[in-house]
Amino acid sequence: MMLAEKRRSIRSFTAEPVSHEDISALMKAAVLSPSAMNEQPWFFVLITRSDIIHQIEALHEPAGNCHDAPLLWIGFAENEGIAPDTDTVLALSSVMYACTERGLGSCWIAFVQEVMNCPAYCKLSTALGVPEGFHCVGALAIGHPSQEKEVPEDRRRDVFSIIS
Amino acid sequence: MMLAEKRRSIRSFTAEPVSHEDISALMKAAVLSPSAMNEQPWFFVLITRSDIIHQIEALHEPAGNCHDAPLLWIGFAENEGIAPDTDTVLALSSVMYACTERGLGSCWIAFVQEVMNCPAYCKLSTALGVPEGFHCVGALAIGHPSQEKEVPEDRRRDVFSIIS
Repeated sequence: MMLAEKRRSIRSFTAEPVSHEDISALMKAAVLSPSAMNEQPWFFVLITRSDIIHQIEALHEPAGNCHDAPLLWIGFAENEGIAPDTDTVLALSSVMYACTERGLGSCWIAFVQEVMNCPAYCKLSTALGVPEGFHCVGALAIGHPSQEKEVPEDRRRDVFSIIS
Repeated sequence: MMLAEKRRSIRSFTAEPVSHEDISALMKAAVLSPSAMNEQPWFFVLITRSDIIHQIEALHEPAGNCHDAPLLWIGFAENEGIAPDTDTVLALSSVMYACTERGLGSCWIAFVQEVMNCPAYCKLSTALGVPEGFHCVGALAIGHPSQEKEVPEDRRRDVFSIIS
């Protein structure tokens, strides 16, 4: 079974923390992702403190939901560059599939981007250690899955044009 | 070794075509990718005809380079939606890692997006079978690698803030 079949959006996690070994592997996967002209125009905030994750959830209206994941992984792209947003989304995907390979579950968490890029919370990313000149492009909730999901049957197949 | 370590940007391919079985697996990987609210806001053009790939290369100034790949895989995102660009880049990443799993090489080809979204060539995507209301977000050159590359050592590691 391909990784793409094994990967599902996991929204329920056990209380087990993500190990240092796993975090280290995910960090490696992130930075090995390709980028235009090798610009590596990304920065990542990894949060394992549930109180801070809950504070970020509370900043969104309606309240955001990181599914009690033990790790929130937030991706920031440089404001300037060739294709920083694309590169950083690709790096997050590298983390996503590395999670699947290591038996971890993940789910893309869209509201985090809204919170991080909201002018009212402009000091938040600085407080989290993000350098100047970056914006958020997405986030992943990561942890040990406490749910099993089948390969989905709901995908459209009429999305291809084959010129052969 | 993780897939992220095995994946390298491959810019040299053998003449061997990508098999129907491989193409079918890559199509499956694409559509199994996650999307916001399961919108699946993507469309893909798969080109195996080298004459057409060369024509696309010639439309770019300076001339584009798809590295003589036997398959050019182009991703288009809906103009409207929650996060169609992100979703489609993620779907392309799903194809990229499925390539690695199957021993295929791939390389992100940036110029194709410029050509496809250029107002002067607005009829091109229609001619390639793309429905109305989509724009290009990226492309992959895909084939059997004729080069081997080591895990890179040039990646920055100072791109993380860990809040624990």
